Amino acid sequence: MPPVRHAVILAGGSGTRLWPASRQARPKQLLPLGPHGETLLAATLERARGVAASITIVTSEALVDVTREAAPGAHVLGEPVGRNTAPAIGLAAATILATDPDAALVVMPSDHRVADGARLQRVFECGLAEVERTGAIGTVGIAPTRADTGFGYLEVGTAVLDEVTPVVRFVEKPGLADAERYVASGRYLWNGGIFFAPASRLLAELDARVPDIGRGVRAIASHAARAADVYPALTSISIDKAVMEHAAGVFTIPAAVGWDDIGSWAALAEVLDGVGSGNATHGEAVVLDGRDNLVWTDGGLVAAIGVSGLVIVRAGDAVLVVPRAEAQRVRDVVDALTGPLARYR
Amino acid sequence: MPPVRHAVILAGGSGTRLWPASRQARPKQLLPLGPHGETLLAATLERARGVAASITIVTSEALVDVTREAAPGAHVLGEPVGRNTAPAIGLAAATILATDPDAALVVMPSDHRVADGARLQRVFECGLAEVERTGAIGTVGIAPTRADTGFGYLEVGTAVLDEVTPVVRFVEKPGLADAERYVASGRYLWNGGIFFAPASRLLAELDARVPDIGRGVRAIASHAARAADVYPALTSISIDKAVMEHAAGVFTIPAAVGWDDIGSWAALAEVLDGVGSGNATHGEAVVLDGRDNLVWTDGGLVAAIGVSGLVIVRAGDAVLVVPRAEAQRVRDVVDALTGPLARYR
Repeated sequence: MPPVRHAVILAGGSGTRLWPASRQARPKQLLPLGPHGETLLAATLERARGVAASITIVTSEALVDVTREAAPGAHVLGEPVGRNTAPAIGLAAATILATDPDAALVVMPSDHRVADGARLQRVFECGLAEVERTGAIGTVGIAPTRADTGFGYLEVGTAVLDEVTPVVRFVEKPGLADAERYVASGRYLWNGGIFFAPASRLLAELDARVPDIGRGVRAIASHAARAADVYPALTSISIDKAVMEHAAGVFTIPAAVGWDDIGSWAALAEVLDGVGSGNATHGEAVVLDGRDNLVWTDGGLVAAIGVSGLVIVRAGDAVLVVPRAEAQRVRDVVDALTGPLARYR
Repeated sequence: MPPVRHAVILAGGSGTRLWPASRQARPKQLLPLGPHGETLLAATLERARGVAASITIVTSEALVDVTREAAPGAHVLGEPVGRNTAPAIGLAAATILATDPDAALVVMPSDHRVADGARLQRVFECGLAEVERTGAIGTVGIAPTRADTGFGYLEVGTAVLDEVTPVVRFVEKPGLADAERYVASGRYLWNGGIFFAPASRLLAELDARVPDIGRGVRAIASHAARAADVYPALTSISIDKAVMEHAAGVFTIPAAVGWDDIGSWAALAEVLDGVGSGNATHGEAVVLDGRDNLVWTDGGLVAAIGVSGLVIVRAGDAVLVVPRAEAQRVRDVVDALTGPLARYR
């Protein structure tokens, strides 16, 4: 009998970066930003179901109900508090291990946009087969399309699309000069947060590096302890820092699949429309005598005249206006929503 | 028995200049922009009722019902089409004359904001008394507070506040250099569109200058003809051009009453807050790291970060973003609302 394959989908998210479309109660993965107008979570689920018989989603407790509704048949786990990715993935791995000691995992974020989902699904197949054959840990290496300083990079000897390749090293978010060098070299890939591992190996690596996480998630998975009692005390650390950067024999599969993490309104503008000409719009928008604006509305009209380089968003009961080059600063707005305005978070 | 005094209130208006707060179905005079949060029409009515026993309002046919509701007890006349101010005032004068041949009129727009309404009411008293004493036509001369090129001006020999003064001449909207000279001279006043006349004299002046208007409005007032048949063919002309600039012995009463016509969002920003520092806001607004913005919302939040000198309005189902210096261009937006977007007009 072939081993059962498991997908682990990370679906926490604060709803900050695409505010006001994203909110605490409706983070990015629940917005209809997929290539066919579906939610990013729905698109992620479809890819995951194509390769895995079992789907485990880790989200925040507040989002468990809405996530269950959006993902029928998936096993939804709620985190009492966010503790970065290592505890979330550890909890999923421990839960899956309880019933399947030979489980092979593909782990993925829920809020990225992928233009060519079918091709990424073939990369999943390839990575899971490598895990089953070798017991190694691996990752998807996104072929970079620009010198982005917002991502970590993977260095490889030679990047051949869709083929298993050893990772030389993990590189943290670089400066612009380094990022440009990386992209020009053809030997660096973006770390898109998608990876492969045997569940047992993953937990063993956590035990070796951050033992409190391994102990804690096992206790929760076996119902020896309540998540609310254990989880808040776990070390808050990413899976990259806790495992990937240290594990031996990590492989990657270079992938050119039209990937974007849509980490800001500016990033969404680039997906909607090429930069440098015209305006990117979504919904009923009128732009007169302006260029390089992103105008987004999920209902009602947005009219702009004589302005350029702005992000203008009308979503639900809130409006945001910010220069495109400063779109990341929407976080500052959300931070400023206190007192009676906190209801707009 | 003292003569009955009549107020004529002009309440047409296209709803363009303060779009999207003002709409075709809810023009500026129906917005709560009065100094105490009342509508401009309500504030106008209160001033008119202070001096006049009879109130006649001329509006567009489409607005007759909403205007009646807003002005109980007033006589509301509907224009089938707009034909500028001379036919509108002529129609009111002919209607009033039908029952009161000695009527003295004070005529006023409905959509201007006046900070000191009580003082303007005393100017009304003074002007009506002058009409009753002399049979002259007169006007209110707004003491200018800046070299505005958007208004016509009145030249007088000496401007003494609250006192009847002969008008030397009417001046059309000047260039900036002339406007600055006018204001510096102390002998020029803004033409704010408020004036005084015996109803019979007004019609006689119309008969002399634009006879089709006198004939037409008399026919409508006597029910000899339907407005829909007659009105569209009337000469479209302002009362200034048709009567005021040519009449003999026109007087004015210089008035310093905190008057503003709120002709644009930029003008409203100046009423809400001094220019040059900070941001003018109305409703729930968050402005971070920006200045000289007007942020206006009639419901829901508007957040702006890193932008300056913008007008940002959220009103009903529409949002407007325009540089404050170009706020007049909102007309271009309204003109662009065609096809399915026409419902936002």
